[in-house]
Amino acid sequence: MQGFSRNHKMAMCAGALAAAMAGAGAAELAPKPTLADVIKASKPSDWRPLDPANTMYMELPAGRVVIEMAPVFAPAHVDNIRTLVREHYFDGLAVIRSQDNWVVQWGDPDEKNPRPMKSAKPTLKGEFTIPMKNDTAFVRMPDRDGYAPQVGHSNGFPSARDPKSGRAWLTHCYGMVGVGRDTGADSGSGSSLYVVIGHGPRHLDRNITVVGRVISGMPLLSTIARGPGPMGFYDKPEMNVPIASVKMAADVPEAERSKFEVMRTETATYEKAVEAQRNRGGPWTKVAAGYIDLCNAPIPVREVK
Amino acid sequence: MQGFSRNHKMAMCAGALAAAMAGAGAAELAPKPTLADVIKASKPSDWRPLDPANTMYMELPAGRVVIEMAPVFAPAHVDNIRTLVREHYFDGLAVIRSQDNWVVQWGDPDEKNPRPMKSAKPTLKGEFTIPMKNDTAFVRMPDRDGYAPQVGHSNGFPSARDPKSGRAWLTHCYGMVGVGRDTGADSGSGSSLYVVIGHGPRHLDRNITVVGRVISGMPLLSTIARGPGPMGFYDKPEMNVPIASVKMAADVPEAERSKFEVMRTETATYEKAVEAQRNRGGPWTKVAAGYIDLCNAPIPVREVK
Repeated sequence: MQGFSRNHKMAMCAGALAAAMAGAGAAELAPKPTLADVIKASKPSDWRPLDPANTMYMELPAGRVVIEMAPVFAPAHVDNIRTLVREHYFDGLAVIRSQDNWVVQWGDPDEKNPRPMKSAKPTLKGEFTIPMKNDTAFVRMPDRDGYAPQVGHSNGFPSARDPKSGRAWLTHCYGMVGVGRDTGADSGSGSSLYVVIGHGPRHLDRNITVVGRVISGMPLLSTIARGPGPMGFYDKPEMNVPIASVKMAADVPEAERSKFEVMRTETATYEKAVEAQRNRGGPWTKVAAGYIDLCNAPIPVREVK
Repeated sequence: MQGFSRNHKMAMCAGALAAAMAGAGAAELAPKPTLADVIKASKPSDWRPLDPANTMYMELPAGRVVIEMAPVFAPAHVDNIRTLVREHYFDGLAVIRSQDNWVVQWGDPDEKNPRPMKSAKPTLKGEFTIPMKNDTAFVRMPDRDGYAPQVGHSNGFPSARDPKSGRAWLTHCYGMVGVGRDTGADSGSGSSLYVVIGHGPRHLDRNITVVGRVISGMPLLSTIARGPGPMGFYDKPEMNVPIASVKMAADVPEAERSKFEVMRTETATYEKAVEAQRNRGGPWTKVAAGYIDLCNAPIPVREVK
């Protein structure tokens, strides 16, 4: 609209076009549907509920964090995390790290006497990428990306892929959850997890197993006091933020479950949602960007009462 | 190194190359200098002190936030903010908004009885972009960008430019400070400012006057409780976080000033600092990104005791 095509090819150079028009003193942008308008006009079929078998609830002093896991991208890790959760591994552990513009991490604060794992595996082979053919839900965004040949969304998760290598992977955007690991690629297990709380550190893509995304409760994590130690780790035990419990939604009585729906990213409605951000209309916006970074593409979530 | 050239042209497609190699099961990456190594090896001439005439101290209950202003990009707004500061406009005002993955904003919480301005101007013509020729310090990064034809740094600030329109502008990266405005382009004054606390909302570029960057104290802003109202505004006065004072560093006795230095972004050392992030070496990193997003390029700051 307003001279900016929704056509894919055009969108790839619309940024430069917008810049040129801004310089030339273009007229005010006409209004167009906002993200809120697109959500309001959406149909029930544009949304999907969370699958309780792939949803974790982490109970913090400030409230519940809801995390959707992505078994397609990290089947072994999601399976191991499910085992850890069901064997109450995380209950009583803590948030142990908060580094500004980077990540908040949780796990076992006691390095000397670590909590034993029961039937979960202590380490797993890294699941940094998967064969593209396993990622059947991928819908590409037209916007070019510096970190990957193709980016878009896979069933509600920001993702990337490379046709040459035939690999696909989840990307480090705000709110994405990954598996802490040591130096070895195969040294993580899911017993320590982190969430991105700053500008997406996309250079971590393909270097870490990404297992999911925070669906609700990001503010409970992003506002946790930053740690004074190296890399934002807390240097005093009293700084740790205790985790009351982590449970699979499937193990929580129906009445106590959080009822969230995620907009289906393979729909025409979702394409409109992204376009509403890529090329905002007036009157507040004076220059439409003509482009959207993968990590700025909203993935709408709503609570169903 | 490790097959990834530091050469500019190569860097533009190294992301795809890295992806291809990852898929092909490339060997472990050899170690290379990290950002910390580059900083350690830097010379005194690689750093510049903050100019007290362009540095603001905002005193919050949790401590001091240090903001460097960019008069080259927003001369009238920086001048107006300086006047507001010197006439104690901000003293006793508050942080009034905190929206997750977006901005924290401060100004006058009392809409009904707004604090009068003294000699500062109530509105200014928007300074969204400047002529490229005014931005003499610009050093381009080789990395392509979706939002602008060229990106890089201008004397310590992330910036962009468009040779076709001949315009340059500061970019909305984490920690950048902008001027709140109403619908009209010329409706801001600097009496309400915000800082980016999430993934850089680059679609705001060229739509807002950007006046500077937080040099120290980001955690004091980024962890402020998110507001429950629309757009993260606080809906109860008791939620406001009080600002004790905002002062120009030049008006603070030498002994009470914060002594920070910023790495000069026009140096070869800075180019190495960015490269250290663009292509991380092993052993922890398994795949070098071969690319860096403008907002992930670090701008090192150090405190001088």
